[in-house]
Amino acid sequence: MPDQPSPAQQILGGFAPKLVELTDDVLFGDVWERHELSKRDRSLVTVAALVALNRMEQLPGHLRRAIDNGVHEDELVEEITHLAFYAGWPAAISAITIARKLFEPS
Amino acid sequence: MPDQPSPAQQILGGFAPKLVELTDDVLFGDVWERHELSKRDRSLVTVAALVALNRMEQLPGHLRRAIDNGVHEDELVEEITHLAFYAGWPAAISAITIARKLFEPS
Amino acid sequence: MPDQPSPAQQILGGFAPKLVELTDDVLFGDVWERHELSKRDRSLVTVAALVALNRMEQLPGHLRRAIDNGVHEDELVEEITHLAFYAGWPAAISAITIARKLFEPS
Amino acid sequence: MPDQPSPAQQILGGFAPKLVELTDDVLFGDVWERHELSKRDRSLVTVAALVALNRMEQLPGHLRRAIDNGVHEDELVEEITHLAFYAGWPAAISAITIARKLFEPS
Amino acid sequence: MPDQPSPAQQILGGFAPKLVELTDDVLFGDVWERHELSKRDRSLVTVAALVALNRMEQLPGHLRRAIDNGVHEDELVEEITHLAFYAGWPAAISAITIARKLFEPS
Amino acid sequence: MPDQPSPAQQILGGFAPKLVELTDDVLFGDVWERHELSKRDRSLVTVAALVALNRMEQLPGHLRRAIDNGVHEDELVEEITHLAFYAGWPAAISAITIARKLFEPS
Repeated sequence: MPDQPSPAQQILGGFAPKLVELTDDVLFGDVWERHELSKRDRSLVTVAALVALNRMEQLPGHLRRAIDNGVHEDELVEEITHLAFYAGWPAAISAITIARKLFEPS
Repeated sequence: MPDQPSPAQQILGGFAPKLVELTDDVLFGDVWERHELSKRDRSLVTVAALVALNRMEQLPGHLRRAIDNGVHEDELVEEITHLAFYAGWPAAISAITIARKLFEPS
Repeated sequence: MPDQPSPAQQILGGFAPKLVELTDDVLFGDVWERHELSKRDRSLVTVAALVALNRMEQLPGHLRRAIDNGVHEDELVEEITHLAFYAGWPAAISAITIARKLFEPS
Repeated sequence: MPDQPSPAQQILGGFAPKLVELTDDVLFGDVWERHELSKRDRSLVTVAALVALNRMEQLPGHLRRAIDNGVHEDELVEEITHLAFYAGWPAAISAITIARKLFEPS
Repeated sequence: MPDQPSPAQQILGGFAPKLVELTDDVLFGDVWERHELSKRDRSLVTVAALVALNRMEQLPGHLRRAIDNGVHEDELVEEITHLAFYAGWPAAISAITIARKLFEPS
Repeated sequence: MPDQPSPAQQILGGFAPKLVELTDDVLFGDVWERHELSKRDRSLVTVAALVALNRMEQLPGHLRRAIDNGVHEDELVEEITHLAFYAGWPAAISAITIARKLFEPS
């Protein structure tokens, strides 16, 4: 499927082509694919960075990706609980609220 | 070995007893011991939070703990490489420099 | 009233029970209740941390709590003005906008 | 036009007069007007600080100001692409999304 | 004593005169002197911002200033303990270590 | 001069080869060389990001690079003064202290 544009290309391809190229070719096409760290571990690490930095806009996408990469939902809840101590309660509460909306839509 | 003071107690026990108690009894005695997330995963997550937040003082201790918890040295190097994209290059370069000093002392 | 669930329990109790327990029993049930620092001082400190870290989601709740703990509205406005110099103007402007919506609803 | 209230005065003048005075008289009235750094450079620097700190609420206003100060739209896109490496991908993606909404309203 | 240079002037006066002027005349000469918030409260707030932002270089000076402004040493220890939950453990541990060196020099 | 190892290669080449490759080939070899933003502007932007994020370890190298790229020393001092308002005073004071040591070695 090389002809199908990536999500980044679809949204930002015409506006920020270099950022899209770096995202698709370097970050996802190269770094995420390396075998030195499993995709499951990369997802745990990425979610931790997003929570620690309070980057909540990117969290839903990476929580879904974490599930796809084999992290269980209750492991993600526990990861956020663990991160409360390292990133602080406010970031953890914002993150767990997003996770609940994603995993337990009312 | 309940009679032996923890590292936190030895350094800070007389000065900040409540913070030591919370560190020893809640963070390490309770949260880190929970089975909902493996210690190896908790180490990956903690290292990611420290790098993302640029908390370099705590990094050597948690890199060593990560090794004790079964993360390989080359996985930690790859984790920091991966984090360059999420936490930014400067934090990753500071972290990899600390990791090198720890793992490859000249 | 021990039978009445806490706000955290109501919202997150079934989804993240450990984080709720830590929030209710350790953070609010133990730390906030300690006499080594008054609740008024804890509110000033908590608001400062939220503004400094740009954690705006938690700010309305803690501004209300600060009022309940005896901080005056004009002291909170002055705190945010003071914090402009330490946390930077953008966080202060976001915070003062939230405070105005809370204290001066149009 | 000294009789016309500034945007900060209009929104926050009655609620946080000292913060408005510092914003209007010191930050914009004094610092931004100094010739030691051009307004174009100050805009580049301010946008970089906002992206690095993930202060997205203030970004649209300062992107518009950057255009007024002579930064081209494609320079701002490239600045955000450059900042992906220093501030991390998540802040850059949030920023580029805001820039696209501003410059390419659908 | 208007003839005596301020600490900022002595260290940075010739190199960054505008930053020194803003520090001396606006931040300390105007904002810190305002009666809308007591100096003791300003010290609590400033220490909280420094811990939350992990700005450890400025912490010793502001811990000393806090003591001068009437905050007790054990209140500062409790403030840092409280902040562990909002700023995260790593910043709190770095801060408490600095406070111990200041208040309990070996 | 393709045979001469880069500074990153010399220090980290054997320990973190992928991070070095990304630094040399993508960040410096590709992004910094793009004409969409001048090197002088990239230096202003990079210094702003480092100050805003309090990444002081990387600041001396990028201040020197800024000078090489045509930013004047007094523009850098003014940039840091400007950033005091956006990144907060503590980061600006740490940065100006580093700049003074670099530009005015006693």
